[in-house]
Amino acid sequence: MKLIDMYARLKSDIHYIEKELEAQIRNEHRMLNDASLHLLKAGGKRIRPVFVLLAAEFGDYDMERLKYVAVPLELIHMATLVHDDVIDDAETRRGKLTVKSKWDNRIAMYTGDYIFAKALHMVTELEEVEIHQILSKAIVEMCIGEMEQIRLFFHTEQSIYDYLLRIRRKTALLIAISCQLGAIAAGAPRDTVRRMYRFGYNVGMAFQIRDDVLDLCGTEKEIGKPPGSDIRQGNITLPVLYALQDEAVRPQLLEEIARIQSNPDQREITAFLNLLNQTDGVERAEALSSRYIQKAISALDPLPARKAKKNLIDIAYFVGNRSH
Amino acid sequence: MKLIDMYARLKSDIHYIEKELEAQIRNEHRMLNDASLHLLKAGGKRIRPVFVLLAAEFGDYDMERLKYVAVPLELIHMATLVHDDVIDDAETRRGKLTVKSKWDNRIAMYTGDYIFAKALHMVTELEEVEIHQILSKAIVEMCIGEMEQIRLFFHTEQSIYDYLLRIRRKTALLIAISCQLGAIAAGAPRDTVRRMYRFGYNVGMAFQIRDDVLDLCGTEKEIGKPPGSDIRQGNITLPVLYALQDEAVRPQLLEEIARIQSNPDQREITAFLNLLNQTDGVERAEALSSRYIQKAISALDPLPARKAKKNLIDIAYFVGNRSH
Repeated sequence: MKLIDMYARLKSDIHYIEKELEAQIRNEHRMLNDASLHLLKAGGKRIRPVFVLLAAEFGDYDMERLKYVAVPLELIHMATLVHDDVIDDAETRRGKLTVKSKWDNRIAMYTGDYIFAKALHMVTELEEVEIHQILSKAIVEMCIGEMEQIRLFFHTEQSIYDYLLRIRRKTALLIAISCQLGAIAAGAPRDTVRRMYRFGYNVGMAFQIRDDVLDLCGTEKEIGKPPGSDIRQGNITLPVLYALQDEAVRPQLLEEIARIQSNPDQREITAFLNLLNQTDGVERAEALSSRYIQKAISALDPLPARKAKKNLIDIAYFVGNRSH
Repeated sequence: MKLIDMYARLKSDIHYIEKELEAQIRNEHRMLNDASLHLLKAGGKRIRPVFVLLAAEFGDYDMERLKYVAVPLELIHMATLVHDDVIDDAETRRGKLTVKSKWDNRIAMYTGDYIFAKALHMVTELEEVEIHQILSKAIVEMCIGEMEQIRLFFHTEQSIYDYLLRIRRKTALLIAISCQLGAIAAGAPRDTVRRMYRFGYNVGMAFQIRDDVLDLCGTEKEIGKPPGSDIRQGNITLPVLYALQDEAVRPQLLEEIARIQSNPDQREITAFLNLLNQTDGVERAEALSSRYIQKAISALDPLPARKAKKNLIDIAYFVGNRSH
């Protein structure tokens, strides 16, 4: 896999970022609950810092500056994961909110707040106000995305545009600004900065669509959770919206969704998934994802042929085809 | 009441801040739940913006700049209120977490995140990076304060220092930086900036101690909730810590607290409050609050005799004596 070469090439810098991340989180570790340390230790691909580093190769690459965007971007991603887990956790305890779980939830909420604030505080070490603005604006948009997602739970009448706007805010924006801020922090030319944003935005859109497809088509082993978890919580994703456009299946599909809303058992989910597979919803979603990948790669066309360019293209293709 | 004169004097500027606050919150109003709009409409004293404006009178008073600190500071205060309500609300539903209340809670959480991010984004309109740093650092500290409060729930062995550090983070810091940032944004001399911080810090400490005293001694009518709500949720405040130092009452008091922890009924609370009133806990807490007020006022001593100085002294005395 080509990505392994890229990670090998950037190894020492990624390691450096990793240490900085740990320092930011560990600072007040006795207050941070297992969840967030666990999150850090669990690793993950650190794709946002990687985008920062690769984008910066089109300007003056200086880790002492880059870390002040790479670390905050990963912290923001982690904070959103912590907040996504709040209350969900309580739910697994059969809807009963014990005093303990109530405290756990509140601790998780404040841990997320703390990580957000740490991220925004760290970026103020760079004097460019534009960078502070881009980062805080992105968080505003991400919050709106999360609220929109909840507002539209089980809303089968939402448009494809609603969906795209939502994943733009929820996912694509943070990846877009990772590329953009890497280029800005490295003092890359303005046209390169714009192209980096465009690349990241399109990769991010493809990434989320692919994620939503996998939630419907992946096996439990591939995706690490039972398929259909999006629809279970009411999140209507692109393949489902396409499937609902199929008039032959639509009435039945609406019934299945209504059934899941009132009783989200695995049996209902399976019936829903079987029905969905009779449509071209997944196929059309995959086609749109591929179009985003093509757009992402086109954005890089005029850039000089550096290693970073090749790595970005490899990442884009990987995102388009990943199965986990 | 002298404070009325102060509010009358600043009326048009406070009104201007109010409009800006509304604009920030209303911007995406369809996603913001009733709770946060309700919070805005409920008003409140807007004491943080008032401190910004008064502190700015010791420099170049320019509302077009001041609003970029006054509004974010009030937004941060509002965001903390929204987050404080998360999950508490669910609890009133007898510990049952319905799908609806789960969504409400998550919306409230993201609304708080959104207001935080809006605040941090708005302040980036000012080019002074120092201001961004002070604000984001304060939020980091406030989050630690909230986590510490939860960690120390029902910990009767905590020290007075634990308590003071906690209310410093939870309350005093935001009031301190309101005064400090007002002075910085107005380009006041550095010594004035430091004095403003010290004034705000000491007023904030006195304010929180007074609040904690009222929770134990106020009537339901005065404080808008049944007395003893702090101890009910496990928050051990200064009068209780002082009372625990009274060896004659300590064993019984520990028993009462343990009883509240296992069964927080009003009967247990009343027994606890009666016992507390046999000690000098409240009296000693009030004495410490008065000392903070005196320190706050001393911090202003060398400053020129402006209207703002008189107003700040009036506010300090009001905070020291308020009964609601």
